[in-house]
Amino acid sequence: MGPFRVGILGATGLVGQRLVERLASHPWFEIGVLGASERSAGRPYRETVRWRLSEDPPAEAASLTVRPCVPGEFEGCHLVFSGLDAGAAREIEPRFVEAGFAVVSNSSAFRMEPDVPIVVPEVNAAHLTILAAQRERTGGGYIVTNPNCSVTGLVLALAPLHRAFGVRRVVVATYQALSGAGLEGPRGLEIVDNVIPWIPGEEEKIELETPKILGSWEGGAIVPADVRVAAHCHRVGTLDGHLEAVSVELGRRVGPDEAIRVLREFEGETAGLGLPSSPLRPVVVRNEDDRPQPRLDRGAGGGMTVVVGRVRACPVLTLRFELLSHNTVRGAAGCTLLNAELLAVRGEFDRGIRP
Amino acid sequence: MGPFRVGILGATGLVGQRLVERLASHPWFEIGVLGASERSAGRPYRETVRWRLSEDPPAEAASLTVRPCVPGEFEGCHLVFSGLDAGAAREIEPRFVEAGFAVVSNSSAFRMEPDVPIVVPEVNAAHLTILAAQRERTGGGYIVTNPNCSVTGLVLALAPLHRAFGVRRVVVATYQALSGAGLEGPRGLEIVDNVIPWIPGEEEKIELETPKILGSWEGGAIVPADVRVAAHCHRVGTLDGHLEAVSVELGRRVGPDEAIRVLREFEGETAGLGLPSSPLRPVVVRNEDDRPQPRLDRGAGGGMTVVVGRVRACPVLTLRFELLSHNTVRGAAGCTLLNAELLAVRGEFDRGIRP
Amino acid sequence: MGPFRVGILGATGLVGQRLVERLASHPWFEIGVLGASERSAGRPYRETVRWRLSEDPPAEAASLTVRPCVPGEFEGCHLVFSGLDAGAAREIEPRFVEAGFAVVSNSSAFRMEPDVPIVVPEVNAAHLTILAAQRERTGGGYIVTNPNCSVTGLVLALAPLHRAFGVRRVVVATYQALSGAGLEGPRGLEIVDNVIPWIPGEEEKIELETPKILGSWEGGAIVPADVRVAAHCHRVGTLDGHLEAVSVELGRRVGPDEAIRVLREFEGETAGLGLPSSPLRPVVVRNEDDRPQPRLDRGAGGGMTVVVGRVRACPVLTLRFELLSHNTVRGAAGCTLLNAELLAVRGEFDRGIRP
Amino acid sequence: MGPFRVGILGATGLVGQRLVERLASHPWFEIGVLGASERSAGRPYRETVRWRLSEDPPAEAASLTVRPCVPGEFEGCHLVFSGLDAGAAREIEPRFVEAGFAVVSNSSAFRMEPDVPIVVPEVNAAHLTILAAQRERTGGGYIVTNPNCSVTGLVLALAPLHRAFGVRRVVVATYQALSGAGLEGPRGLEIVDNVIPWIPGEEEKIELETPKILGSWEGGAIVPADVRVAAHCHRVGTLDGHLEAVSVELGRRVGPDEAIRVLREFEGETAGLGLPSSPLRPVVVRNEDDRPQPRLDRGAGGGMTVVVGRVRACPVLTLRFELLSHNTVRGAAGCTLLNAELLAVRGEFDRGIRP
Repeated sequence: MGPFRVGILGATGLVGQRLVERLASHPWFEIGVLGASERSAGRPYRETVRWRLSEDPPAEAASLTVRPCVPGEFEGCHLVFSGLDAGAAREIEPRFVEAGFAVVSNSSAFRMEPDVPIVVPEVNAAHLTILAAQRERTGGGYIVTNPNCSVTGLVLALAPLHRAFGVRRVVVATYQALSGAGLEGPRGLEIVDNVIPWIPGEEEKIELETPKILGSWEGGAIVPADVRVAAHCHRVGTLDGHLEAVSVELGRRVGPDEAIRVLREFEGETAGLGLPSSPLRPVVVRNEDDRPQPRLDRGAGGGMTVVVGRVRACPVLTLRFELLSHNTVRGAAGCTLLNAELLAVRGEFDRGIRP
Repeated sequence: MGPFRVGILGATGLVGQRLVERLASHPWFEIGVLGASERSAGRPYRETVRWRLSEDPPAEAASLTVRPCVPGEFEGCHLVFSGLDAGAAREIEPRFVEAGFAVVSNSSAFRMEPDVPIVVPEVNAAHLTILAAQRERTGGGYIVTNPNCSVTGLVLALAPLHRAFGVRRVVVATYQALSGAGLEGPRGLEIVDNVIPWIPGEEEKIELETPKILGSWEGGAIVPADVRVAAHCHRVGTLDGHLEAVSVELGRRVGPDEAIRVLREFEGETAGLGLPSSPLRPVVVRNEDDRPQPRLDRGAGGGMTVVVGRVRACPVLTLRFELLSHNTVRGAAGCTLLNAELLAVRGEFDRGIRP
Repeated sequence: MGPFRVGILGATGLVGQRLVERLASHPWFEIGVLGASERSAGRPYRETVRWRLSEDPPAEAASLTVRPCVPGEFEGCHLVFSGLDAGAAREIEPRFVEAGFAVVSNSSAFRMEPDVPIVVPEVNAAHLTILAAQRERTGGGYIVTNPNCSVTGLVLALAPLHRAFGVRRVVVATYQALSGAGLEGPRGLEIVDNVIPWIPGEEEKIELETPKILGSWEGGAIVPADVRVAAHCHRVGTLDGHLEAVSVELGRRVGPDEAIRVLREFEGETAGLGLPSSPLRPVVVRNEDDRPQPRLDRGAGGGMTVVVGRVRACPVLTLRFELLSHNTVRGAAGCTLLNAELLAVRGEFDRGIRP
Repeated sequence: MGPFRVGILGATGLVGQRLVERLASHPWFEIGVLGASERSAGRPYRETVRWRLSEDPPAEAASLTVRPCVPGEFEGCHLVFSGLDAGAAREIEPRFVEAGFAVVSNSSAFRMEPDVPIVVPEVNAAHLTILAAQRERTGGGYIVTNPNCSVTGLVLALAPLHRAFGVRRVVVATYQALSGAGLEGPRGLEIVDNVIPWIPGEEEKIELETPKILGSWEGGAIVPADVRVAAHCHRVGTLDGHLEAVSVELGRRVGPDEAIRVLREFEGETAGLGLPSSPLRPVVVRNEDDRPQPRLDRGAGGGMTVVVGRVRACPVLTLRFELLSHNTVRGAAGCTLLNAELLAVRGEFDRGIRP
């Protein structure tokens, strides 16, 4: 497959850094252009990025000159990844679509547009069918998004339960890592010995994106699932890994053992496709009383596996459990990349791409 | 009132330390005897305690010789406070009851006994009526308990809602501080950059104690309220202050404004009693989006006020909100002390106490 | 004494907040004007301050309208405190001096000017004699500064040793709290599970300010002491309290016991003056092996006492020890306030102050 | 080379876990026996270990039955690694020596014995010559140790300076990670928002081991270098990576550039030996003002490279700088393993080993 030449919008942000890291050794994609704000443009990537990951930036990327995020600078790219924040994405991504690019985006800016799918490949690869309609509207370019970082893990755990039993109502409380707030997140003074019980816009995203992703493809449209979600979002002082405590009401009484079996058997819609970023298993269930824990479990499956634990009966709804997913890998850059791999095997980069 | 001479069982533990700190300047009580394990007995308190609070132990307590926790060592005390852990309490507290002592306990050992009340004075002072029955059974001594540290804040916020609207179902996720685990809590290596999604026995306590405390006094017995509770308990890396994210189903549709008004008007059953440890207000409601926060709000009302925030509609149940209470003050030593003050004004230390 | 009406420059910053907190109940001073940046001016203090201390702002201050930092807005103030950062102070403080104000400043902007004293009252109150020269130069107004937050504790511990034995060389490594960086300090993502081995400008300040403060008053000038200092500055993830590990070369061999005696006997030049912010003792020495610790000891003497521990022989220089001081109290607002109290008893607010 | 069958004493401790992790994929060594305390013996490793690393234990090790630490259980091993704490090592290691084993130990128990070398291969491989004397004393078995976790990084940075210029005096302040204290380290309650300025025995180890390792091989004995060291040891709330702030006096005036060149050119005594655990470079020097930082730099060279930064003149001694080394890798298990690899290429496992 490929090789495909890719660009990255927002390459100096935290999601951009994860994309650069993961693309460095990718078998199908190679980085062609790194784009960032005007302030960074014109300087080598290594000098302008505030690199927060534990290794230095990969050598090839480090020496690239950063470009401004305008389509003309990305000539020759088969696709662009977007790690832009919502405000910038709202302005910049449409210009790339208009110029005919495939935009594989982590941004929230266009997720709720009717013809823009929010894709978690294992869960709703079928929603990509909507791209035909989107491309017709735009004239060729298109946007595919992945969900908010706290939604990806949630829908991966809910999807098998939804298929098997029907998910009706969800109450979820989150324990979200600092990296989820990007480079401009809370000050140390605000988060040491503290929890912040609010993340602007996050609860709304969980409550809206979850039904859309679990929705069906009917009559040429994505029809949101009839799932009501109540989210309580919190920032805690962990570095990576969003932990979520979930109570769920299912379509019928289901015991923990039955649910665990369904979760363990879940393979998802990407089974057999050979996508390089696919983990061995999208969901694993641990048996220990005190797992998953962010520091111990966020690396499961290279950060792409959702770890579920403490599956037990809920006295109020049907079941309750914990889940953990790596927010900048599975919940952001890793999922963006997996989406691009899925698009690649479906041939979506072969038609109508800029030269 | 008083002065009453008091003893402390488990004086070297974290709850014991808070009791010693708060009793040092108490207008009604004076410390007579400090009791701890055999290992500590015979040495001055200052030498045997691993003092974890920010000031040194009060001078008068520091020089007391620690005694073993046997009734004979507590002669002359009007009452004993117990900060023992459950295992020790199960053995030791009954010996003091048998010897005729009033035991005002923070321990979970006997909370669920039918004739032992779990008291939060503002919420269910009326449950103390059961003491007559208990004293008849024991021959004079008795145990009064306060709830688990994560329950006290919860029932203080639920009580006014329960009276006004009826609370039917509760889903609560906790963000509990390290001090809640006492001196033998998680290692730094286990909790830095981490969250532990399990606290042994804690969810069961929340689910059982809450209905008992919100229960009514009918036909000579405490009748638990018909409230179903689902708890998700987590240890986070804060030092003090349990934060809880709550979704609650009420007896009818109630909007946030109406709920906030009821919470703000709540005075509780101790209004006008002049108890020294009573805060100005048992519950305050903050308007900011991002409060309560453990580090900023745990000191409210000297640690005795529960801070509520983010009261808003719940898409799954009726309402949702955040609450914070100081776990070793309001949730432990402060509530134990408030219980003793309430007993004092009711004259419960005047009848049948050991000389 | 007083009452004196005071203004605060930089009232919304972290040092400004501490000043507001401590002035709320001060017996001599009352807050007249709160000054901050143009962005904040015109709004009530409670709405514009990002209050980071554990209680809400004092009610009287909270309702004041914030003013811009121009002298005309501070009419009627006997003095102004400055909690400005260095850049702003460099521009703003001279305007107040020119307008005839006494400026009692925490800022580093003018500390190294020959006729501006850096004062820690217990150590070098005598340096205030230089004010006559400064006032002559300016026409009446003047600036008095306190040291950098990591210097105040250091000179309080070194001063008695310097007087008794002569301090020649100092190697000091710091463990500095997040609050020392103000509201714009390191992000949580940068400091959790991390140490930052550099604080811009800090080592230079320690190395220059220490000899000046320990210097003598000779021939109408402050003559820096002949003390060479090597500082290694680090930001760690504590909230308050700068810990410092010190090796010191003295003028002769001195054993730990002799040094401890000298430290314990130190009363300082403020003894008997009755300054409200003076702690009972400026320096205390603890005997435990593992003290001082930031969280346990930063509150000593209301945050105004320096806690020394682990005094022992140094295999390379003469002695080594640990010291801790509360960086935003003793190391900033508390020392600024103590300086103002010292000026007040010396009558420095009575001559030539603006009406 | 090999394969050599190895045993691990203390396999369930934190150093033991790192050994198990690193041996899982080692080209020369294969785990034969896992030894731990009587309490753990007889159970599968996966059930008895409190695994604290981020992945699960390697599958092959996980299923091994843990054995008691007696020589009879380790028949057929070419060597044993020891991750025992000092107390246990003092009793157990001599029994293995007596039984003829090569003991490659991380323990401090016998480091200061005259005929037991403390080896950091790049620095003092030549000290292994003493083994002939030791084996003569014991009859065949022997102990080789690596230094204390805070010494390894220090001597790797000092060694090239010592060779080039002579190191005379060292003042070092440490910022040591929680994993350095093993599984029984400080509680979260003790270390969150805190620094502990004392690690029992640590300063003494730094001050004694450093001169021995930098010492010369003369007249059939290890002659300690004439280097005086003053250490200030502190535990901070990082998970892994010991940071050290060092002031050093050299034999002559040396500028930062000259020192940096010498550090960068250092290859060490293992160059060209092809040891699998050798990092590409034993020491790297970073140019940024604010590096090394524990979280960003501890993984350098797979945890085996020491990262130096901020090399600059010292106003008191000659030079000062920061260094960081991964305490459980370079400072413990990784160095132990490197020692074993060095012994392997020298043929030390071929003579006189138990069958």
